[in-house]
Order: sequence, then C-alpha cells, then structure tokens
Amino acid sequence: MSRWFRAGSLAIGAVVLGGLILALLLAGLRWAQVELFYRPLAPERLEEKTRYLDGVPAAAADAPSFVVIFFDDLGHGDLSSYGNQLVRTPAIDRAAAEGLRMTSFYSASPVCTPSRAALLTGRFPVRSHTDRHVFFSDESPIATLRKMLGLGNELIRDEILLPEVLRAAGYATGMVGKWHLGGIPGHRPTDFGFEDWFGVLWSNDMQPLHLYRGDEIEIRDETPRNFLRNFRDEDDPRELRGVDQRLLTRRYTEEAIRFLEAQGDRPFFLYLAHSLPHVPHFADPEFAGRSAGGVYGDVVEDLDRSTAAVLEALERLGLAEDTLVLITSDNGADYNGSPGFLRGRKGEVLEGGQRVPMIARWPGRIAPGQVTDAMGMNTDLFPTLLSLAGLPSPADRVLDGRDLTPVLTEGAGSPHEVLYYFPVSDGLPAGARGPRFKYLASTGDVGRDKPILTDLALDQEAHNLIGLFPEEGARLRAAVEELSASIEENPRGWR
Amino acid sequence: MSRWFRAGSLAIGAVVLGGLILALLLAGLRWAQVELFYRPLAPERLEEKTRYLDGVPAAAADAPSFVVIFFDDLGHGDLSSYGNQLVRTPAIDRAAAEGLRMTSFYSASPVCTPSRAALLTGRFPVRSHTDRHVFFSDESPIATLRKMLGLGNELIRDEILLPEVLRAAGYATGMVGKWHLGGIPGHRPTDFGFEDWFGVLWSNDMQPLHLYRGDEIEIRDETPRNFLRNFRDEDDPRELRGVDQRLLTRRYTEEAIRFLEAQGDRPFFLYLAHSLPHVPHFADPEFAGRSAGGVYGDVVEDLDRSTAAVLEALERLGLAEDTLVLITSDNGADYNGSPGFLRGRKGEVLEGGQRVPMIARWPGRIAPGQVTDAMGMNTDLFPTLLSLAGLPSPADRVLDGRDLTPVLTEGAGSPHEVLYYFPVSDGLPAGARGPRFKYLASTGDVGRDKPILTDLALDQEAHNLIGLFPEEGARLRAAVEELSASIEENPRGWR
Repeated sequence: MSRWFRAGSLAIGAVVLGGLILALLLAGLRWAQVELFYRPLAPERLEEKTRYLDGVPAAAADAPSFVVIFFDDLGHGDLSSYGNQLVRTPAIDRAAAEGLRMTSFYSASPVCTPSRAALLTGRFPVRSHTDRHVFFSDESPIATLRKMLGLGNELIRDEILLPEVLRAAGYATGMVGKWHLGGIPGHRPTDFGFEDWFGVLWSNDMQPLHLYRGDEIEIRDETPRNFLRNFRDEDDPRELRGVDQRLLTRRYTEEAIRFLEAQGDRPFFLYLAHSLPHVPHFADPEFAGRSAGGVYGDVVEDLDRSTAAVLEALERLGLAEDTLVLITSDNGADYNGSPGFLRGRKGEVLEGGQRVPMIARWPGRIAPGQVTDAMGMNTDLFPTLLSLAGLPSPADRVLDGRDLTPVLTEGAGSPHEVLYYFPVSDGLPAGARGPRFKYLASTGDVGRDKPILTDLALDQEAHNLIGLFPEEGARLRAAVEELSASIEENPRGWR
Repeated sequence: MSRWFRAGSLAIGAVVLGGLILALLLAGLRWAQVELFYRPLAPERLEEKTRYLDGVPAAAADAPSFVVIFFDDLGHGDLSSYGNQLVRTPAIDRAAAEGLRMTSFYSASPVCTPSRAALLTGRFPVRSHTDRHVFFSDESPIATLRKMLGLGNELIRDEILLPEVLRAAGYATGMVGKWHLGGIPGHRPTDFGFEDWFGVLWSNDMQPLHLYRGDEIEIRDETPRNFLRNFRDEDDPRELRGVDQRLLTRRYTEEAIRFLEAQGDRPFFLYLAHSLPHVPHFADPEFAGRSAGGVYGDVVEDLDRSTAAVLEALERLGLAEDTLVLITSDNGADYNGSPGFLRGRKGEVLEGGQRVPMIARWPGRIAPGQVTDAMGMNTDLFPTLLSLAGLPSPADRVLDGRDLTPVLTEGAGSPHEVLYYFPVSDGLPAGARGPRFKYLASTGDVGRDKPILTDLALDQEAHNLIGLFPEEGARLRAAVEELSASIEENPRGWR
C-alpha cells in the first residue's frame, strides 16, 4: 500500500510542480508581453497625439466630404468592371465609369485586421502592432493566447486615426459596419474618432456577433459560443440567435443613408465597412438566387445595390459634387471569390492576396472614364484625405502612405517607387514591386524556397526572372531589406 | 546494484518485446499487402494477357506510325500557342498550326506515375494500382513504406501496355526518357513491350538517377544518396556525379532521332518521355540565359528545339505523312511553370493540376489550323492508337479511355460525356466535368469543405453555382458516385 501511496504522492507532486512551472512561464510571457508590447505605449506618445489633435485647424467651409466603401474579402476579379463574367455590379461599374478605376491598388495585408489598421492610420500594420493574423473576441481563448505571445489584440490608443483628425477639424465622422480592431471598451470605433458607429466588432464568422449602436448593444448574439467552429455557409442563418446576417448589408445601407441625410453644412467622413462578402454567405431573402454567380454572387450584387443606394442618396441630397467616394476591399478573394487572373488568394503575398479593386468617384474633380495602373495602397488614404481636407499630417511618427491626390485628380503616375507585400505571419515585408517587376524574398515553397522575380504584366507570377534581371532583383531586395531593418530598429515608427 | 540490474533487464526486455511487436505488425502489413494487393495478380490474368497478345493480328502494311512526345510538369500555359507571353515555342506552335490543338485535354492524374500508367494502359490509375502519389526508387525508405502500406511501387505485370500490343502487331517500339513506373527488374520499359529504351527510371529530382540503355546502366549516378533531400535548382549540376542533367534533353533528342533513322518499312511507336521541365531546372549551357522566361523558359525552349529536331527528322526521312505526332504533358504546372489562367497546379484536382496541352499533327490526315474544346484524357491514347492501327482492344478488362480518332480526323465532338478528376491521395474520383460545368465533391478547404459546381467557361473555378444548377450538380455527382462504387467493387476493372 505504501508503494502506491508513494507513487500517488509523487504524481500529485509532479502535477503541482508542473502547474507552478506553467504559472511561472505564463507570468514570464505576460511580463514579456507588457515589456515588449505595451512599453511603446509611453505616455509622451499619447500626449503627442493629444497635442497634434488639439493643433489640427478647422477645415475650410468648402472642404470635401469623404465616403469610403470598404468591402470584406472582395476579390480583384469580383466586379464586372474588373472582368467578372458571372456577378453583375452595375452601380459600382457606373461609379468606375464616372471616375477612376485603379488596376494596381493594394491592401497593406492579405487579411482583415492589419489591412483595416493600415487604412485608418496610414501606416504599415506593424506600426500599430496589428500585424500577425487577426484580432479575436476577448471571450475567445485565442485572444488570451495572442496576448500571451505578445501579439496585439486591440488597437493601441496612441495611434492617430483618420476619423480623429477629421473630427478635430470639424468633420462629422460616422462609421457603419465591421471594426475588427479590438473589442474591449476604450478600443472601439467611438474611442477612435467616430462620433457614430453602427455595426459589429468582428468578422461575420466570429463569435459573439453583437450588433452595436455606439457603445450599446442593439442586438445581442445569444448563439451558444463555440470558439472551435466559426459560422459557416452551411449554418441556417435563422438559427443563429443574434443579428440576422442575411439583412446585414441592408441594415448597414439604411444606417449609412441615415448618416448622410443627417448632415448639414459640415463636411463629413463616412466609413462604410461592409461585413460581406466574407464567409459565411447568407443572401438577403429578397434577392437570393438572382445572381448568375450563385450565393456569393447574390451577396456581391446586394453590395452593389447598397452602393447604388448610397450614391443615389448623395445625388438626392446634393452632396455628390462635394464628396469623394472611394470603393475598395480589405484583401483579396477568399475561397469562393474571384482573384480574376491573379495568382493566389486571401492570406497570401501573391497578387491575389493583396491586390484589390479601387474605384474613386468625385464628379467635377475626378475626370470620368479613367483607368490607371499607377500603384497605390490603402495606407495612402490617410495622407490623401488629409491633403484634400487641407490638414497637416502628424510629425512625430512615420506615415507609410503617400498622397494620391495627383493620381486621382490629375491623371498623374504613382507617388510610390515601390510597394511592399506583408505576410500574415510577420510584420516585416516579404517582398516588393515596382512598376514592372515583383520580388518575393521567399515563395514559402517547401524544399525549393528561393527569391523570385516576376514580370507582373507578362504572366501570373509563374516564371522566375531573377537571373535575367539581377539589377532589378537586387534593387527590390534592397528595398525590402532596408524597410525590414528600419522596422526592426523602430517598429512603431516614432520620430 | 541489483536495482539497476533489474531496471536494465526491464529496459532490454521492453526493447525486445517492442521489436517483436513491431516485427509482427510489419509481417501483418506485409501479409495484408500481399493479400490485398498482389492477390489480384491471379495467374489467369497473366494468361489472359498472353492469350490476347498472341491473338493480336499483324498490322497492315500501311498502318500509321506514332510518336508521343510527353513532357513532365509542362503547364497548360507554358507554350506560346497556349498563351505564354515569355516562353517562345515556335516548333510546337507550328505543329499546332499544322494540326489540331485541344483546349480541354487532361492527364488522368495531377502527378507523374499515375498519369504515365494511364497513358500506357488506357485505364484509370487505380486499375493498375498506380494511384496515390508516385513510385520511389527501391533504395529509398519511402518505397518500403509504400509497400508496407499496401501501395504499389511498380507496374503490375498483368497490365497490358500500348507498346506490348503494338509490338505484337509488328510495330517497332522505342522509348526514350523517363519511366517512373517501377524500378526492379521485370518492371522496366523493356519488360513492357519496348524493344529499345534509353532513359531514366525516376524523376530528375530523385535518386539514384542512373541513365539506362536497355537493361544496362550507361551512366551510373554516384552522387551520395540522400533520400531526405531531392535534387534542387540550387544544386550545381556539375557536382552531381551522374548523368549531366543539363544535357538530358539533347541526349534524348539524339536517341529519338537515331530510333527514327533506324526504321525501315515497319510502322513504329516512339514514346519520347522527356524528363523536363520537372524540377530541378538545369539549362543546356549552349542555350542558357536566352529565354525571356528565365531558366524555366530556357528549359522549355530547349524542349521546343528538341521537338523541332524530331519533326524535322520525320520530314527528312519521308515519314511525316505516315506518322501521327501527339504532344502533351503528364500533369499541370509545378511552382515555376504556368497554368495560364487556370486555378491550381500540379498535385491538385483544380484545372491547373490536370488540364494540359495536347497537340496532334498528322499531315494529310489531320486538317491544319484546328482548335477544339472537345474533352479528352490521356487514357484515350491507348484505344485511339489501337483503333488507328486497326488492332482489337483487350476484352477481359475495362478500358477507361475512348477512341479520339473522330476528334482528330473529322473535327468531331468528344466521345466523353464526362471526364473525371483523380486526387493524389486516392484512387477514387474527386469530381467530374461535362462540356460546361465541373463538379468537385470536396474542395478540401478546412472548415468550409463542400461540394462545388463551377462554370468552366465563365470563371476560374471560383463561384459555386451548385444552388443554381442542382440538376447538373446531381448528374455529375451521380457520375462520380457511380464510378466510385464500380471501382470499390472491382478496382482493377476485370471483366
């Protein structure tokens, strides 16, 4: 008996010791997280931010308004104007015909969270610690895991967001739709410059999918939580006990139009960040089955109707000529979307992962019928909109975006010499492109990983031309290495 | 001490017992392998084969000759005539212009071994037990593992191969190039109807890469074996102690022309199975750096020069009008090849994995300048060539291929109502296509795997139209399930 007693004691002792070691390890990781992650949250940066925002001048009375329509996972080939032969998007195509369509426009990341942070901050994802995959609900164990690993799970308060600057200049700022930049109080849209917000915190396959109006939950997601299984196309949307996802686009559209109707003489900024066509795809019952592109097509055509309604509201309210409308996507096509003829999809640094549609419409200011292959990235929206509003950029931090105003209004070439590609797994760039060539430091191909240089005009990132154009390869590699070194030295880009 | 002695004895005992259990397990697996795999090798099938071959009549004096040029991993978009904008392939393009180019032709598998078996037997890979990835050298531990798992690692002797039938009918039969259908004596090209063989047993990234002439090794690969690391592009080809891979295409071409020159009045069958453009890519020094498609382009352009030389030899020898030349590939593009605008690559059941170029040239019999989207598969070569030679097909076994003669010579439509897609991981079909739609039972997409129906003409296998065309989906699903059930009941297709 004493032998079993001894064995039992040993086992209990081992469990206790193991638990202690694990606790110490977790504490160490937490310490490392605080030291490595929150340390940059030095109070002086928050002060700098306050000082900058306090110093933003009032916008001129004739300052333009802005509407940014941001789709989720819409691929480069998902619109008729970008070559889709099944999905019909007449309203978006008409906006393109009335303005400028960009064929070499990119999101700063092939996934949601980093791309949204880049758009709203004008900086690469690593600056705002939003790199490495996406944020998760704080109810999810993945959120805990992320924090333990020292990864971000909410936008840092010292970042300066586009709506904060515009609001400081007197703009009305409204957001409708998906945030995906943190869920805990103090890190939501209304904490970052949006006077109004109607929408959801997470992707429409993530839990919980509460529908917020400002800080209040308007529709609570009572679906039993299951963090091992995201919502899927196969689910019956009527059985999910939260917002009816089939009507999300319709609701967002109504709120967006309500925002526009509420505007008086103040210039405004409306950020309409649709939840779709991200999975799951639950079509509006009124329109279901109408698209030749299947359920995915129904969803995209619903987004086109939403765009039509927003543009029509601008016309009806006499706001069209004072408003720049930008239409783009947060990353490339996911499984049932179309990257067109590009290689790769969402999550990849191949073209299909980061190249997205971009349409700019502004009657009277942007000439109709233009198509440009000038390079742009969604980091450019911050400096471009500030420039058009006549507002100064913050001086205490690196802005990675460039002012696209000349591209939009004068048919100019790109302000970028190179654009960078950012992988899901890292804050450092994986590659870069110039006007003709694309360089990837790594193809990630097991057993034959190597640098690759491709001619973007002449094939679909297939043939490696690095031996034929060593100088171009070296130039782009140097750009990647230079940016990497500067990020490693000063990840958040303080000045 | 006695405590340590006891512990030591226990440890030794455990190792011995473990070894015994492992040995029993291996013996069990070997038994299962023999029972499940070799059992079908019933002597009556070998007798049937002998009886059939003995009964093959002599071909007519004016029976046509055949040259099959079979590339390795050449993608659907790797030839100028199939849209490549970097790689120049004037000789193959000219052959296409002088004859028929097929735009909906498929290999029976997205990888080497099963595709080659299908071409030579006219049957789906599972019939010849060549399904599930590829064969490995018997020096490699993977060969042992395959056998222990009950998978094939050499072609079964009871299979009837195209060269065996043609030889029985009096054809001269020659093979130049890669076999990849087994390495042990008794399972090599000269054991399956090829009077002459000059080439290699394995892919050019596999070891050992001896160069054979018939049953003799002409150049022995003395490179130290490393079965954990295949040959790669980064290797210096001059340091590999075997055949100089840079000159493989040149050597093959010389041997192919020598075979043609040796022919008299007998009709002949030449199977020129190039080792390239499979990785690694070592360009012929005489041509290196010339292609705008980089090293891969150099290799493909070298293959084009080889094709030019073979066609020129046919002309010079006055054989062109009596010879059907077929040019195709064993599967879709690998990493640095081009699938054109198709989705997917080698190893996948997406179009880019199995759809390959197919060019048929036969002056006087095939009208020039034809392009057809009639469906075909490389299983069709066996019945087509037998039909053109006026020879009977074996009656004791299922032939999965169809006679393409009317497609080639009369501009007829496809003899297939559906074509099937075979995954690397299974002998059963994963999907099927008709003239317009493609059905895949599974996209293999984690968390959102589902059946998908796509319109092959209107997008790149992106939008799932299964809800819009339920009948077409059900029809193709039924075809997949019917074939699967019939294979499960009678995998080798005996009659």
